[in-house]
Amino acid sequence: MTDTSHAPTVHRRIAAVLDDDRTRNVILGVILFNAVLLGLETWATAMAIAGPLIELLDGLCLAIFVVELAAKIYVQRLRFFRDGWNIFDFVIVSISLIPAAQSLSVLRALRILRLFRVLSVAPSLRRVVEGLLIALPGMGSVFLLTGLIFYVGAVMATKLFGAAFPAWFGSIGLSAYSLFQIMTLESWSMGIVRPVMEIYPYAWAFFVPFILATTFVVVNLVVGLIVNSMQDAHHAEADAETGSYRDEVLDRLTAIEAMLRRRDGDRQG
Amino acid sequence: MTDTSHAPTVHRRIAAVLDDDRTRNVILGVILFNAVLLGLETWATAMAIAGPLIELLDGLCLAIFVVELAAKIYVQRLRFFRDGWNIFDFVIVSISLIPAAQSLSVLRALRILRLFRVLSVAPSLRRVVEGLLIALPGMGSVFLLTGLIFYVGAVMATKLFGAAFPAWFGSIGLSAYSLFQIMTLESWSMGIVRPVMEIYPYAWAFFVPFILATTFVVVNLVVGLIVNSMQDAHHAEADAETGSYRDEVLDRLTAIEAMLRRRDGDRQG
Amino acid sequence: MTDTSHAPTVHRRIAAVLDDDRTRNVILGVILFNAVLLGLETWATAMAIAGPLIELLDGLCLAIFVVELAAKIYVQRLRFFRDGWNIFDFVIVSISLIPAAQSLSVLRALRILRLFRVLSVAPSLRRVVEGLLIALPGMGSVFLLTGLIFYVGAVMATKLFGAAFPAWFGSIGLSAYSLFQIMTLESWSMGIVRPVMEIYPYAWAFFVPFILATTFVVVNLVVGLIVNSMQDAHHAEADAETGSYRDEVLDRLTAIEAMLRRRDGDRQG
Amino acid sequence: MTDTSHAPTVHRRIAAVLDDDRTRNVILGVILFNAVLLGLETWATAMAIAGPLIELLDGLCLAIFVVELAAKIYVQRLRFFRDGWNIFDFVIVSISLIPAAQSLSVLRALRILRLFRVLSVAPSLRRVVEGLLIALPGMGSVFLLTGLIFYVGAVMATKLFGAAFPAWFGSIGLSAYSLFQIMTLESWSMGIVRPVMEIYPYAWAFFVPFILATTFVVVNLVVGLIVNSMQDAHHAEADAETGSYRDEVLDRLTAIEAMLRRRDGDRQG
Repeated sequence: MTDTSHAPTVHRRIAAVLDDDRTRNVILGVILFNAVLLGLETWATAMAIAGPLIELLDGLCLAIFVVELAAKIYVQRLRFFRDGWNIFDFVIVSISLIPAAQSLSVLRALRILRLFRVLSVAPSLRRVVEGLLIALPGMGSVFLLTGLIFYVGAVMATKLFGAAFPAWFGSIGLSAYSLFQIMTLESWSMGIVRPVMEIYPYAWAFFVPFILATTFVVVNLVVGLIVNSMQDAHHAEADAETGSYRDEVLDRLTAIEAMLRRRDGDRQG
Repeated sequence: MTDTSHAPTVHRRIAAVLDDDRTRNVILGVILFNAVLLGLETWATAMAIAGPLIELLDGLCLAIFVVELAAKIYVQRLRFFRDGWNIFDFVIVSISLIPAAQSLSVLRALRILRLFRVLSVAPSLRRVVEGLLIALPGMGSVFLLTGLIFYVGAVMATKLFGAAFPAWFGSIGLSAYSLFQIMTLESWSMGIVRPVMEIYPYAWAFFVPFILATTFVVVNLVVGLIVNSMQDAHHAEADAETGSYRDEVLDRLTAIEAMLRRRDGDRQG
Repeated sequence: MTDTSHAPTVHRRIAAVLDDDRTRNVILGVILFNAVLLGLETWATAMAIAGPLIELLDGLCLAIFVVELAAKIYVQRLRFFRDGWNIFDFVIVSISLIPAAQSLSVLRALRILRLFRVLSVAPSLRRVVEGLLIALPGMGSVFLLTGLIFYVGAVMATKLFGAAFPAWFGSIGLSAYSLFQIMTLESWSMGIVRPVMEIYPYAWAFFVPFILATTFVVVNLVVGLIVNSMQDAHHAEADAETGSYRDEVLDRLTAIEAMLRRRDGDRQG
Repeated sequence: MTDTSHAPTVHRRIAAVLDDDRTRNVILGVILFNAVLLGLETWATAMAIAGPLIELLDGLCLAIFVVELAAKIYVQRLRFFRDGWNIFDFVIVSISLIPAAQSLSVLRALRILRLFRVLSVAPSLRRVVEGLLIALPGMGSVFLLTGLIFYVGAVMATKLFGAAFPAWFGSIGLSAYSLFQIMTLESWSMGIVRPVMEIYPYAWAFFVPFILATTFVVVNLVVGLIVNSMQDAHHAEADAETGSYRDEVLDRLTAIEAMLRRRDGDRQG
């Protein structure tokens, strides 16, 4: 807008292109095509035959994403960063742009996160994710409680069993991981607690309450999710039908009262 | 119908027989008898004593199914293929008819699917299955999201851990299977993640979020199922009782208004 | 009643004693005392010190149960066997009376089932069990479906994998047990399916759909339980408060109509 | 109050300080600071560098807790012990005060429970915990039933399998632990029941019903939790909106009746 005279027109035209449904479909197609490419990259035979072509096309896909994002930032300026989905896209594309040495396979692997862009582009998936995330803030306190149980549990486990079982409980981090495994009930007894009980026979007095407490908290979290969803659904529905019925009843009662009052007036008049 | 003059009568008579409840009960009996036969086939002693007889009776059961299906197709013509249950029956019986060499034990094993015909014949089971399937379309987006998480997870796992653990993460297919196992929480830590962490110490940063994400999506799927079922049940019930009460209230209000209005008319008349 | 003249009085007196709350509390006490005795019987030290005494007291407890049951049968005659709880008590006490040789430890172990008599005697536990059982009949079709999936699955697994893995899938019974284990997700992959896949690489195409199908059915069973309980609770509550409100509204509307009609009559009269 | 003349003022001043929000925030800060200290204590490097300092600061935190509790007891006297949260704080701080020899690592580890004081101090966590606990009393009977199933199961398992598998079922305590493991479905089949079945081939007839029974009871417990929460939420909401609507309908009906009755009076007067 502070640019040369024809800039506003360019600006408006790019905005129109970005808003177009066809642009979204093209981007969606590029994401899905890119998904196939990234899948082929894990297949040695395909890479042997057409490795350079696959990498070229992958680079092309990335270029399209970069151009799209740059255009969006050009159009929306700082407003761009106020939308969570835009930041999501920006971070995902940025990760892919970090130059990775052949050895840094982690960075190369993170490029696949690019496919998650489909979440921000396809409206139906976008709504599902928003629906899932909307429940999280209301559960903040329960997550805090779970975190507290884990921290206290990890410190205790480290102090109690760390010396004898350094691989499982040697530090707070290792203990937290082991407790997470125990919370998911995976091999908790045969794998962890029975071996521990051979040295500390009363170890069950720590682990069984831990399992009961975390299970109880998780069950309550799920119950909370169900009750909230039900409330929302019930609200949305009740307001529509019941509301119109109630309005009609009250309107009619008002009308009857008015008729009676008018007649009272007639008579007294 | 384009046939000789007595065809319509035959046509109608077969249709009447197929519609008869006794026919359905006979078919149900044949299915259950066939179930016993197919069970006996897995029992070496029974096969040694009466092998040829069991196979003969099994062939007879299959013949009855083929005749029933052929009759249905003759009666309903192309309409036959518009009903999902008919296609289900057709596919199941067709599989049994594929000639299987002694070595192709898979095809022989698939014959047991014939017992699932009980789902389409017994009305109560039919209703249960339809009740289960009715919930699926509404969950399409969540399945899509799960599929996306699995695809991205499988590609990443293959790139990150495929070289060191070819048996678990050697290809996208193997990775997807391993991730499914991890999603069910079976031996995820002691069996998979701890061994992986011995080579890649930060592997938990991939697997723990994967577990949390898939568990969260599955929980939300179940919550959605519950809320939907509840809404349906609530609707069905609310409409019956509340509806009749509301109708009565509105009728009476109308009557009172009418009386008042009539009297207003009387006075002014 | 066909007995000598004073029999009715004895009959009535026994009935009164059985109905007495104190009698129930005594029986409850005997059950709990017996629970401790049966617990002590598993403790070698206690048996070494006071073995004969414990067995004597255990016999005494059993005698009290027999006398109580005999009295109940004497009072209620054939009506006794119409109540499910009475049959439950009768079977449990009868099992304890079967003379067990020292070797038949199973029969001795079954005696502990006697403690379940507390379910029929304590009213609060009785109500809980009745509450749990009330949900079962409505789920008959779903159980039938689960049974069908298990039978078909067991026959298929026996035919497909029985030859190579006789310990897991050697017969329909063994297959059903293994499939139950797989349904509970216990070691399904590392313990069963991965070893099977080493010989039959496509075994996952049987097991993964089996897991999805049984999990889906179980989830729907739980959802059904929740919706039913909710409906019952909602009904019970809605009927109380809403019912009285609705009755009042309708009564008042009737009264208003009656007043208006009476006046119409006055005027026309 | 029975003290010297200026005591009431001191008493009131301390009460005011304790009630102050800033005091609560300071205590919250001390708890969180203490959490970090207790975490550092498990880290050998940190202890090597600043061991004495960390222990000094830890002692200081404990001293602050003791002073706070002493002040509370001074202010509230015996009323202090009527609040569950106060007893909770008192027990937790008392445990930390027990002088522990270097060898008694259990007592040292229990000091970390001090961090749970955050539950009683932070209002949002306090509400979450109270919300979780409020559901427990209504489930008393179900817990009793679970306890009964466990006791009977443990006695039976000890009698049946104790001789052959002393490590798993050698005593009631060991059996109860093994049954708890089996209830959580951890390695129940591959780890426990399959080995047992090699000696007692019918062991599944004990374990499978045990799993079904405990799972059924747990599912019903969760269903009960959901239905109760839903009822509470539904009540709270229904009372607000529906209540005001109903009041208005009844008020208007009363007004209409009053008008009609007044007019009847006019006419007859």
